[in-house]
Amino acid sequence: MNEPIDSLPDIEQIRAAAARIAPHARVTPVMRSAALDALSGAELYFKCEHLQRGGAFKFRGACNAVWALSDAQAAHGVVTHSSGNHGNALALAAATRGIAAHVVVPEGAVRAKVEAIERAGAILHRCAPTQAAREAMCAEVQRATGAELVHPYADTRVMAGQGTVALELLLQAPELDALITPVGGGGLASGVAIAAHATNPGLALFGAEPQGADDAVQSLARGERVSGIVPDTLCDGLRALIGVSNLDALRRHQVQVISVTDAETIAAMQLIWSELKQVVEVSSATVLAAILRQPERFAGRRVGLVITGGNVDLQALPW
Amino acid sequence: MNEPIDSLPDIEQIRAAAARIAPHARVTPVMRSAALDALSGAELYFKCEHLQRGGAFKFRGACNAVWALSDAQAAHGVVTHSSGNHGNALALAAATRGIAAHVVVPEGAVRAKVEAIERAGAILHRCAPTQAAREAMCAEVQRATGAELVHPYADTRVMAGQGTVALELLLQAPELDALITPVGGGGLASGVAIAAHATNPGLALFGAEPQGADDAVQSLARGERVSGIVPDTLCDGLRALIGVSNLDALRRHQVQVISVTDAETIAAMQLIWSELKQVVEVSSATVLAAILRQPERFAGRRVGLVITGGNVDLQALPW
Repeated sequence: MNEPIDSLPDIEQIRAAAARIAPHARVTPVMRSAALDALSGAELYFKCEHLQRGGAFKFRGACNAVWALSDAQAAHGVVTHSSGNHGNALALAAATRGIAAHVVVPEGAVRAKVEAIERAGAILHRCAPTQAAREAMCAEVQRATGAELVHPYADTRVMAGQGTVALELLLQAPELDALITPVGGGGLASGVAIAAHATNPGLALFGAEPQGADDAVQSLARGERVSGIVPDTLCDGLRALIGVSNLDALRRHQVQVISVTDAETIAAMQLIWSELKQVVEVSSATVLAAILRQPERFAGRRVGLVITGGNVDLQALPW
Repeated sequence: MNEPIDSLPDIEQIRAAAARIAPHARVTPVMRSAALDALSGAELYFKCEHLQRGGAFKFRGACNAVWALSDAQAAHGVVTHSSGNHGNALALAAATRGIAAHVVVPEGAVRAKVEAIERAGAILHRCAPTQAAREAMCAEVQRATGAELVHPYADTRVMAGQGTVALELLLQAPELDALITPVGGGGLASGVAIAAHATNPGLALFGAEPQGADDAVQSLARGERVSGIVPDTLCDGLRALIGVSNLDALRRHQVQVISVTDAETIAAMQLIWSELKQVVEVSSATVLAAILRQPERFAGRRVGLVITGGNVDLQALPW
């Protein structure tokens, strides 16, 4: 899987994605908490994508990619590498179309997520935990099967699918002033930015990134994509380097990315578990951590927070 | 607090309670899980009272009791003893009417729950963890303040309030064949039995009880109330001895109580966390544990499960 540089989707592609995935994806609820509003000084609207099929927003992008294929393409199946939610989502999405999903899984991935990928019906291909090994294995599967590559974030169809979460949230909570998403590879952040500004150009857009994988923060600050970072964060869903097009979307849409420590994220995760009674994974909590770190930027505003996933290994909680 | 023997509410009192609490209580959602349906062989409808105000169904009963008082009675406040959710619920309910709530809390109660009671604005009165100490302290508060006693389960107003959860669930899922609730003091089980059979006399009613506090199972088997049990269970919400009237309701409505081990309950709790992504407390998981222990009694049926609470000490999980 050499790094693709797919173009960004436009709002029509995101609307088409919303229609394409509607028969398969869930409309997830928006939750509120008086206690968390009081703590943050803002009005918080939690968009509960941990209640999406497969327990993460990733189903939106994967489902759009799978159903955007022609019948001839689809017959060969799909392939990706993923240590987590994207692999699971692609397996579930492939099952909705009755096609094969090949998932390249690096050693050392979170056990609960690998088990979920297997349960979802994927054909697993294990490889060493290096980028080179992942790409080699992906290429091998493509050669052997003709499967279509669905990259986790640098894929126009995937970005368009992830953007549907913003369309849905802005229908549920049209009065929002701001939106914040976690930033990993940037598929969600870029899709959401495009969809959100097409719906309401005045929305303030934010991202949240772990300090130990803050390539987006650094890239935006330096004006060029920083690629030499070795991720060091518990947020296993946010270790990817931001994609080229995804970074471009953050720039164009003036997404302000806030970095947070893992300790801040774990504290925010416990708040979400305690106050909202929702099992969310650590990466999801970066958005609340960012608001609590810089409350002055959100004070008195209506803020939508995309809660990205809930696939947690209950035997290995981070506290 | 000598043990009261309040009469059971009738359906009109439960309907009145529903109207009384409507301005204050939440209509909680019903959740489904394809994975848990497959595992159990039944259609499961989880009534999410952990998303009720205060994180437990107890708000319903407490709120009904508080708002059933005359203004003259209410002026003196309310008092109860509770190591957990009822104390918190009474404090929150009293706050909705702007009156004082006194809560007698035995030493050794779950820290997270005591903190919640305090945050909810109650005046705490600590006592030794014996029934005698609780009753003495309660009586003292009553003498000193004139506060109205609101017993956690042996109180007609409380039972009526808890019964509203069944009215609500049967509006949301009218096709249910069966209902199951945890059984502790029996306020929920008795209120639900009365409301459920008034709505649909054909409903099969079940209870779930920890083996280490199975006084309801033993009492129903022997035909008399067994009172010599020393509770030994992690289910801190289900250690109370079943009330006299509450046991009578279980008999009259032929509620079949199934006992489960703590190990079964913990396994069920993890399933709810993993599959529904909901933070529920251990007592709440007894209902799923009971279904998984005796699946033949539920096979192919549409079963409503009352998930009673979500107030968990994240620093002291039971696995």
